[in-house]
Amino acid sequence: MQELKQKIISHGRALNDQVLLVDSFLNHQVDVRLMAKVGEAFANHFADSGVTRVMTIESSGIAPAMMTALELSVPLVVMKKQNSAITRGDVYTAAVHSFTKQTEYQLSLSAKYVSAQDRVLVIDDFLAMGEAALGALNVISQSGATVVGFGIVIEKSFQRGRDRLLDKGYEVYSLARVKHMTKDHIEFHE
Amino acid sequence: MQELKQKIISHGRALNDQVLLVDSFLNHQVDVRLMAKVGEAFANHFADSGVTRVMTIESSGIAPAMMTALELSVPLVVMKKQNSAITRGDVYTAAVHSFTKQTEYQLSLSAKYVSAQDRVLVIDDFLAMGEAALGALNVISQSGATVVGFGIVIEKSFQRGRDRLLDKGYEVYSLARVKHMTKDHIEFHE
Repeated sequence: MQELKQKIISHGRALNDQVLLVDSFLNHQVDVRLMAKVGEAFANHFADSGVTRVMTIESSGIAPAMMTALELSVPLVVMKKQNSAITRGDVYTAAVHSFTKQTEYQLSLSAKYVSAQDRVLVIDDFLAMGEAALGALNVISQSGATVVGFGIVIEKSFQRGRDRLLDKGYEVYSLARVKHMTKDHIEFHE
Repeated sequence: MQELKQKIISHGRALNDQVLLVDSFLNHQVDVRLMAKVGEAFANHFADSGVTRVMTIESSGIAPAMMTALELSVPLVVMKKQNSAITRGDVYTAAVHSFTKQTEYQLSLSAKYVSAQDRVLVIDDFLAMGEAALGALNVISQSGATVVGFGIVIEKSFQRGRDRLLDKGYEVYSLARVKHMTKDHIEFHE
């Protein structure tokens, strides 16, 4: 997605070869017009996948996932991050390690909002090591639902996330794939 | 907003006279079509207020705030909740007590995404005691920006939040104002 790549170049900031800050249009301030286009791009790509629910993880994935769900006319379900494993009622959970923040959290999804008949599109803002995506996959799979694929706004292609999901047979559709970055330069896969 | 009230009656669940669960369409699963209408309603109401930025608090306010910002064609800024007061760079913060969860958190807003010239519309999913709204007001006011008002999806009118904001001279526009509730009955202000 050309407009997204241009925005990353003009407004993103690579702190080093690993950390990309996009809080001016995606994580803290949100460019809502761009998010609408991001949602359209995901919806178009997965238009024939029979998606019944869009899911994401709070909180930076919510804006693009909201726009995708609206385009596909299906409900959005926001998986929750919790510090502890204490849950009420029928809830699917998985522990997720965050390499970025060096913390662990519990991802949770109420059994009320997913069923074995569902075809789920998972949307997230970033794909790096794939820990969050694999956690989401774990949680959703406990319900028996089918994950039709992953829609990622920004993929750090030099980390292992994409390959880990492909190895399991899942489609990964990323709108911007960062191949390599330094403080002065961000290079994308075409 | 009639459709929202009907949704609360058909899909909300009053656990007792204080706690209203709306995780089937607002907090966990999100009715995106309803959120689009909620965004429209806020945008229409504040159309002449010269809003330059919509702000909300992660994470349940993001969906309605996203749709409001899109309707008003202004950026969205999502204030962050953190466990600790440790911040990097120029960040406005305030401590907020959550009566619902009996916890305290730090609300933060980067100085980069707000200025003294801004006219800010604050959107949130709930207004109860008003702690989160007053925290947001505190954080935004540190920048010198003007808060033009609060757009609330569901107001628990039997709690003090609305009056605390009105006392400070702010407009509160709530789409559903719950006057009174029991396990079997939810009553709204007209």
